[in-house]
This record gives sequence, C-alpha cells and structure tokens, in this order.
Amino acid sequence: MRFHLECRECSTPYLPQKVAICENCLAPLDVVYENVKIEKSELELREKNMWRYFELLPISSKKSIVNLGTGFTPLLKAEKISESLGVSLYLKNDTVNPTLSFKDRPAGVAVSKAVEFGDKAVCCVSTGNLAASVAAHASKAGIEAYVITPQNIEREKFTQIAAYSAHVIAVKGTYDDANRLAALASLELGWNVVNITSRPYYVEGSKTIAYEICEQLAWNVPDFVVVPCASGALLRSIHRGFKEFYEAGLIYSLPRLVGAQAAGCAPLVKAFYRGTTEIEPVKEPDTVAKSIAIGDPADGKYAIRSVLETDGCMEEADDREIVEAIRLLASKEGVFAEPAGGVTVAVTKKLVELGFIEKGSSVACCITGNGIKAQELVLEGFSPPVIEPDIKELARAVSGEVEELHAKS
Amino acid sequence: MRFHLECRECSTPYLPQKVAICENCLAPLDVVYENVKIEKSELELREKNMWRYFELLPISSKKSIVNLGTGFTPLLKAEKISESLGVSLYLKNDTVNPTLSFKDRPAGVAVSKAVEFGDKAVCCVSTGNLAASVAAHASKAGIEAYVITPQNIEREKFTQIAAYSAHVIAVKGTYDDANRLAALASLELGWNVVNITSRPYYVEGSKTIAYEICEQLAWNVPDFVVVPCASGALLRSIHRGFKEFYEAGLIYSLPRLVGAQAAGCAPLVKAFYRGTTEIEPVKEPDTVAKSIAIGDPADGKYAIRSVLETDGCMEEADDREIVEAIRLLASKEGVFAEPAGGVTVAVTKKLVELGFIEKGSSVACCITGNGIKAQELVLEGFSPPVIEPDIKELARAVSGEVEELHAKS
Repeated sequence: MRFHLECRECSTPYLPQKVAICENCLAPLDVVYENVKIEKSELELREKNMWRYFELLPISSKKSIVNLGTGFTPLLKAEKISESLGVSLYLKNDTVNPTLSFKDRPAGVAVSKAVEFGDKAVCCVSTGNLAASVAAHASKAGIEAYVITPQNIEREKFTQIAAYSAHVIAVKGTYDDANRLAALASLELGWNVVNITSRPYYVEGSKTIAYEICEQLAWNVPDFVVVPCASGALLRSIHRGFKEFYEAGLIYSLPRLVGAQAAGCAPLVKAFYRGTTEIEPVKEPDTVAKSIAIGDPADGKYAIRSVLETDGCMEEADDREIVEAIRLLASKEGVFAEPAGGVTVAVTKKLVELGFIEKGSSVACCITGNGIKAQELVLEGFSPPVIEPDIKELARAVSGEVEELHAKS
Repeated sequence: MRFHLECRECSTPYLPQKVAICENCLAPLDVVYENVKIEKSELELREKNMWRYFELLPISSKKSIVNLGTGFTPLLKAEKISESLGVSLYLKNDTVNPTLSFKDRPAGVAVSKAVEFGDKAVCCVSTGNLAASVAAHASKAGIEAYVITPQNIEREKFTQIAAYSAHVIAVKGTYDDANRLAALASLELGWNVVNITSRPYYVEGSKTIAYEICEQLAWNVPDFVVVPCASGALLRSIHRGFKEFYEAGLIYSLPRLVGAQAAGCAPLVKAFYRGTTEIEPVKEPDTVAKSIAIGDPADGKYAIRSVLETDGCMEEADDREIVEAIRLLASKEGVFAEPAGGVTVAVTKKLVELGFIEKGSSVACCITGNGIKAQELVLEGFSPPVIEPDIKELARAVSGEVEELHAKS
C-alpha cells in the first residue's frame, strides 16, 4: 500500500477506504504517502498534466485515472502588472482547465477514486465550477453524476452541467438546505458526495497547483503564493503540496501563503486579524465573488494555520476592487478571470501597497476560474457606438487617432 | 532572413512585409521558410505551447511573441466513441486554449507580427472566437483592438470582448457590410485587419495543430484528420503543417484530410461532389454552426485541393446530427464543444458508417471551440425535478436506482 489515511488531529490511522471523518475525534482524515521517491529528471519527461504526480496522488492503479488533460496550466508572467507593482507577478492560469476551473483537479481525483471504489455514480452540491467538473469527469468515466442545487438559480448557470448530461435535482430551499440533504444522502443512502464522502481524496487534487508552480519556475519557489479562500481546503492543499516537494528534496524553501477573501464574506480574514483560528460564521454573504462565498468554511482553521506556519497573512478585497482587478487582468494581461481570480490579484495589489509583500518579491497568484462563467460583471455599461457601414464614419468612431495608431510597414 | 512571401499561384517572391495579395495575379501570398532544421530531441525539451515551433512560424524575433500559453492542447483518446465506431478516435481539444478556441493560434501569430511591424492597433470583423482572441492578445501586447460587428448581435456574445476592453464598433448592416468596411479600412486607412491585411502570417498559426498531433502520437500520423471548414484556411493550414513536418523528415506519411461542413452552409462539400474547385456561394447560410457558416469561402478551392491531394473528402452534417454529436462528445467523453466541433464528430461517424473511413483506422478530429459559447443549444429542454429538502424525496427523484448505483467500500 502506497498510502493510508490518518486523522488530522489525533493521528489515528485508517485504511484508504471510503471514510472521511475520524471515529475518535470527528476531525477530518488526510491521505499520508509512504516512501515517496520522485526524481526531477524522470518527472520532466512525463505527460504535461496533473497525473504526472501519480506517486503523490491517492489513486492505487493508473488504470483508474479519469484523464481529461487537467493541469499543467500555464504560469504566465504578468508583465505589465509586475512593472506597475514593482514585483514579479505570475498568474497560475486555471481558467483553461478542461471545464474552465481548478475544480478539475479535486474532481478528477475524486471521480478516479470513485471508479476505484466501484461506484456507479457520484454526487455534489454546486451550481458552478464543481458541478461542471464532476459532471464532465463522470461522463468520461462512464458513471452517473447527480447535482443537487438550490431552486431559483439562473438557467444559464446550468449550461455545462446540462451539456455533460448530469442529473440535476433542484431543492426548495437554500444552499445550506441542499448541503444538509447531500450530507444525509452520503450517510443514509451511501452516496459518494465527492466533497463530503471522498473529501480526503478530493482535496488532494488541488495540491498539484503547488507542484506545477515549482516545476514551471525551474524548481524555484516564489516568495508569496496568493490563494482564494472559500472552504479553506485549497490553501491548505497547496501548502501540503509545497511541503511534500520540500520533504522529497525537490525544493529548498517554502513560500509565504496569503489567503484572499471577498470583503462581503471574509470569516477567515476576520479570525486572522482577531488572532484566532476560531471562525465566526458569516450568516449572509454579500459579494460578487459567489464561488468563494462560504460563510462557515469547513477547513477554515486549517487554512489559517497554514498561513501562520508560513509567516503569511489573510486579506480581503471589496467588490469594487475585485471588479477592477478582473478588468486589469483582462485588459493588461489577456487573462479573463472569474471573481475569485480578481480577489487574489486585488489582495496582492493591496499587500504590495501596504508593504507586506516587499518590492522585488516574486508572487504567484492563483487564477482559479474563467470569467466567461460570470459574464454579467463585465457587460455592465457595455454600449458600443453604432455607425453606418461607411469608412468616414468608421474613422470618426475611433476619434481621429487612426493615423498615429497604425505604423506603415 | 528565415522566410519570405510567395504568390500561391504564380510564385512571385515578396519581402515579408505587410502585403497579402500578389500584385501580378491577385492570388494570396504564402510564407515560405528557408533551410528549416528541426530536431525531434531538441523539440521535445521545449515549452509546451505553440511557440515551440518558432522556426516554422513567421516571426523574426522571439521578443515579438505575444504568449498567452496557446497550443499544445490535449489530444484525448475518445474511448467510448472509438469503441462504438470501431476506429481509434482522438480529439484535438482546442476548447481549452486561452480564449477557448483554436483562433488563439492564428490571432497569436497575427498580433505578434503586428508588434513586429510596430502597429499600435489591430482590427477584425467578428462577434465570436476571432474577436475574443484578437482582443486578448492585443491586451497582452499592449496595443489596441478594434472589433467591427454587425448590429443586432446578442449582448452575451460580447462577454469576452468587453472583458478584454476591445473597442467595439457596431455597423448598421449585415456581416458582409462589416467585412467590406474592414477591407476598406485595411486599404484606405492602412489598418491591420488581422485576417485580411496580415492574412499570410495569420493563417500560419493554425498549422501548429498538425505539428502537435504528430508529437502527441509519438511522431505517428493518424490515417485521417477531420477539420471543420469555414473559409477553408484551417484545413489548408493543417495540410501545410503535415507537409512541412514530412519534408523536414520528422514524419514518414501524410494523413488523409476530411473537410467537414454544416449542411446549412456547405459550399465546399457541394463543389467537391460536383468534382470541381469552383465554389458556388451560399447566399443565406442556415445552420446552428454559426462560427463556420461562411457562404463564400476565400480559401475554399485550396481546401478542396488539399483534400484531393491527400485522397480525402468533404462531407456535411445537418443540424440534428451536429447537436447529437455535441451531446455525445460531452456525455461520453467529457468534452463540451461548440457546433463546429460537433460537425467534425458527426461527419466522422457518417464516414465510418459509409465505409469511407475503414474500421480500425486512426482518426483525429479537430474540436475547435468551447461549447460554453453556444449555451442555448444544450439548455433546450433542460428542466430538472424540484423537490423538498427531504431524503426520501431525493431517493424517489433518482427513481429507485440509488441502491444498486452505489457500491459499498
């Protein structure tokens, strides 16, 4: 056996089965790998997707892998933003994963694991990135996907989910009601709800972001890594990834981790500034960054611990700053991010201005999802000039700057 | 000088400047490379994006490259469709390029070339994939993008274009009116309209699809490559790509090329079956595959020549077959394609059934764009059951199959 499960708090070991919570202390379980040996030179020859890190993923047989080509997404130098901030800013561009978000990493692992368990179906509660990713991987695996969602979600949100032929069940109630129902389905019906039933495996997928950043910077580690925080699992998973590469002797330092939240739902930032890991839930999240607006984050305290352990911090950005950052990223760097990506860039900007991120530092920002899924934000105020099909009107429409804009060849 | 331009018909040579049409015979110009030397072993070490083929791209200096990480998109084995058709089907998944379509390849080259020419702006006529890609690359390059579009286009189509802060100019008229205006702007205002003014360079980007297929099949060549045809330039460019690799001694055979069109706009298919390269324009295209509905394709005759030269064919699929193929791809292989991708898969299916593609053949299908841009197609008839947040109702909603669907761990 290459890995087993272990309680995050009391270290009780478990066989790598479909179990997520410690029987003794009810804390979450983590995957622990045994005798990992991994060579840079061998790694560099492998296929450029997240399955190249097979030794550090909780899948027993390569045959179980459900591969849509996830991972090894571009790490782009944000040249103009770097220059204006005085840092070296890199964008980890997960907007181009198979279903257009980082969720393909955890969902890819969870659905592969479901195949290994012999499950004929997987389930999740989501109306967004997670549902699309679970649905796509279930399609590829040839198993069913059940997506539980609150009622009254805009129809357009279901485009990907409908395309991948997932079974959608709308619940008369809130997101919380849908989540409680899924937890019950996991317990009482034995459903594999990927982010509940299979959580120890599911969260492992996201740490491949850390591995890739190391490789893409030629085995160097950035000074800071900025991660959006919803449940907190992504930040903790990325921290694990860096630690595992450090312990395997592949890198020689760890980055300082920054957790980024939207001001309209920032329970981790608030706890961090109160100097505690005890989270006060936010009852009514109110932000444009809906994909990370989790009021009572399950892995919140662990995310804060990771931040403290690496001498990092938690910071928030408000809706205006988030939308500005989305526009900045798209119009200066050609990367169109959903609000969660805007949050990381806005927080980076703020921390440079505050001096927490020193000038000259290298910073990697996680751009976790594609802006095309949050179109209403950028279309506000969009109103192009309308002209007759006439060359003089065209020239006027671009306000006389035409001559100087175009060089002669 | 590593490359020059040459007339496609009369072979008159030109310096590699901003010129697209032969002065003598008005035929299009092509880029011709001189003394290309490229080694497999060296190539395999390079960065995994389309700029790894620098020697075969018409950019003079690597400094001009506008790199958003385009290319080296996954080549996925479509396992279930392969099995049902009795062929080895591979999907060249360009739905995950930076702006979610293959257009990042030609637009990436054209905008890099504009940087090299010293242009301060680029222009295109498009409401879809091309405009999004030109806008994103212009942002990254720090130059302006002007997008000319017919009036009365649905607002949602502009999501990406608005995000990347392109200047949109709506024309009172049809798509043809907008195109004529852009051609005039190129001629009279000296604008760099990427697919007109810079066409010889622009079309070069798409051939990287051919290079990547060769590399991703370990330097083997599939028996067939199926390409959607709009202007015809994509198919011809892919043909060029395979020929260049063949001439460089990197591969030892050429694939048979299949051009795929929607029945509602299939001038190339019609010409092919009439046994001619003379295209009769389609006056009123009528198909769901809007991104490839070009009634009078500029490179049509060259696409037919490529098909004839490789012993391939042209074939069409109707709207029902296209939508069915989109659903098949998404629900069996986890890839959500726009209609142009549906066309290639539908045509492949038809040609296997007709026996033109023999059982046991290997086939690569170009999946050129992401289905999320054509959401109305898959949401038709989407109507999930609505339940109370109650575990019994949930179990009933999935119609009693729950028990047997879930294995015990």
